[in-house]
Amino acid sequence: MGVAEEAVWDIFRNPSPRRKGVGAPGDDCALLQPPPGRSLLQTCDQVIEGVHLLPSDPPKVYAQKLLRRCLSDLAAAGATPWAAQWTMAIPPERGRRWMLALAKAFRAEAEAFGLPVAGGDVSQAPVVVLTCTLLGLANGKVPGRGKLRGNETLFVSGSLGGAVSSGRHRCPEPRLALGQRLVEHYAPRAMMDLSDGLVRDLPRMLGRSPEQKAGQVAAWGADIRLPKLPIANELEANPAGWASAIGEGEDYELLVALAPRQTKAVAEDRVLQKFGLREIGQVVPQAGIRFLDDGGRSLRLKAKGWEYGWR
Amino acid sequence: MGVAEEAVWDIFRNPSPRRKGVGAPGDDCALLQPPPGRSLLQTCDQVIEGVHLLPSDPPKVYAQKLLRRCLSDLAAAGATPWAAQWTMAIPPERGRRWMLALAKAFRAEAEAFGLPVAGGDVSQAPVVVLTCTLLGLANGKVPGRGKLRGNETLFVSGSLGGAVSSGRHRCPEPRLALGQRLVEHYAPRAMMDLSDGLVRDLPRMLGRSPEQKAGQVAAWGADIRLPKLPIANELEANPAGWASAIGEGEDYELLVALAPRQTKAVAEDRVLQKFGLREIGQVVPQAGIRFLDDGGRSLRLKAKGWEYGWR
Repeated sequence: MGVAEEAVWDIFRNPSPRRKGVGAPGDDCALLQPPPGRSLLQTCDQVIEGVHLLPSDPPKVYAQKLLRRCLSDLAAAGATPWAAQWTMAIPPERGRRWMLALAKAFRAEAEAFGLPVAGGDVSQAPVVVLTCTLLGLANGKVPGRGKLRGNETLFVSGSLGGAVSSGRHRCPEPRLALGQRLVEHYAPRAMMDLSDGLVRDLPRMLGRSPEQKAGQVAAWGADIRLPKLPIANELEANPAGWASAIGEGEDYELLVALAPRQTKAVAEDRVLQKFGLREIGQVVPQAGIRFLDDGGRSLRLKAKGWEYGWR
Repeated sequence: MGVAEEAVWDIFRNPSPRRKGVGAPGDDCALLQPPPGRSLLQTCDQVIEGVHLLPSDPPKVYAQKLLRRCLSDLAAAGATPWAAQWTMAIPPERGRRWMLALAKAFRAEAEAFGLPVAGGDVSQAPVVVLTCTLLGLANGKVPGRGKLRGNETLFVSGSLGGAVSSGRHRCPEPRLALGQRLVEHYAPRAMMDLSDGLVRDLPRMLGRSPEQKAGQVAAWGADIRLPKLPIANELEANPAGWASAIGEGEDYELLVALAPRQTKAVAEDRVLQKFGLREIGQVVPQAGIRFLDDGGRSLRLKAKGWEYGWR
């Protein structure tokens, strides 16, 4: 557990809810005994003051966003959350009280998702920097990205856009039940959560992103029917609504690529309808993403999605 | 994987060395299939500019310290390193080059320890904040802390003190082989790595630390023979040498509590001698830590170990 602050150790020490196979932390390591035969999924994420949240946001909001955006990655794998570890680096002037409120809020959030906290680490930094590592149990074949055949139908859950401007990004809703149902019943060819905006995330699914080496993955494209995109209520009368829906980011909805033969069954699945899962377009063999209007005409849209400004 | 910077994705994408059961990252989660029947150990740690390292330290030093202090936690559990995930938050003005050098150095370090990197996350912060989460495979009963019977013999490896002042703390040596051998052959009653100094870490092992609820763990004490403490060469002629050896911290040596009947076998084990494992004292039923001189007289020492200054 490294350098730790005794006052919050109690929070780390007692995993709650208790879970068979997740040992009490407090030692240097947490002892984990996953259920035999189940694959694990591991993901890590960060929440940083001034990047993801404001200095004025209360500790509860930090805890919520940290855990929920990390859970969203498990949702994208159709996994069941199993155990959490997290780290906090906090400015000393925030004080012990803020730190304890954060630790309690994280634990309460984890409990709400049935997730034991199996340890963590505490340190100092000039701004609040939180990280979370989650382990999940796989519920079937993990879809991942970049394994498309060029003929899939694309779906998204919920509605897109306005998450940042409305403040919804502070408490995202991880689509865990949706992801699990899709993996268990429809074996998606690819699935991911939308964190940086459709214009930035979709290319990652298609294997056209610069992070993938040329030739490593087939370069598919996609036709997106813009009028089919479910945009957030408050954006509907707004001319910039579409730009926000595809480029504002922090939606944490699922983007799903399904084999064409499953389109009908998915559209008729009442559980999936509850999550507002709807068809938005097609994967096509031609590279590039086209946004089409009602008449099938290609539109030029300005939206680039979330990006850091590295020199 | 959340918000990520494409330029470093390649580093995260290809786990190297490859390992059966550790899936290629690049998706939202890493897919892990641990060997059947083996328990896992999980630990996380942080390295922060201005707290653990200087702004002027090169990226390689950041990578080394991050991975090695986290490996030291696995060593304390006698575990075999199995998979790593890590996060970086870096000031934009450090630039892409520094970030890439860090990512490459981390990967090279991980390779040197036979450890595949199974994903990570990249973001921004006003100072460098790095975290690392490691999974290890258990090699026997995990010793942990706080399960003492009050009659154990205490050992430490290597030498203590001077790690910070000499700069050795920047590249600690995780005692993996030692930890594994002890767990496999001697089933220690307790084992931990010394990161905050003996005066601060020993009470944690004894169950006397304020982080443990009253009554939860028996309150043992320890008698430490000060002349038996292996202090770092450069401190031997230094009157403050002892204070550094017990309170400077960042030693990353192992502190081990063994059943009395194993003292002789351990002292004669040539592999353990190679790590400089030596007896330093006894766990005793009376609470409190006493430092004794050659004649068995109790000494008063001023050293408090590493502590953050929370308000």
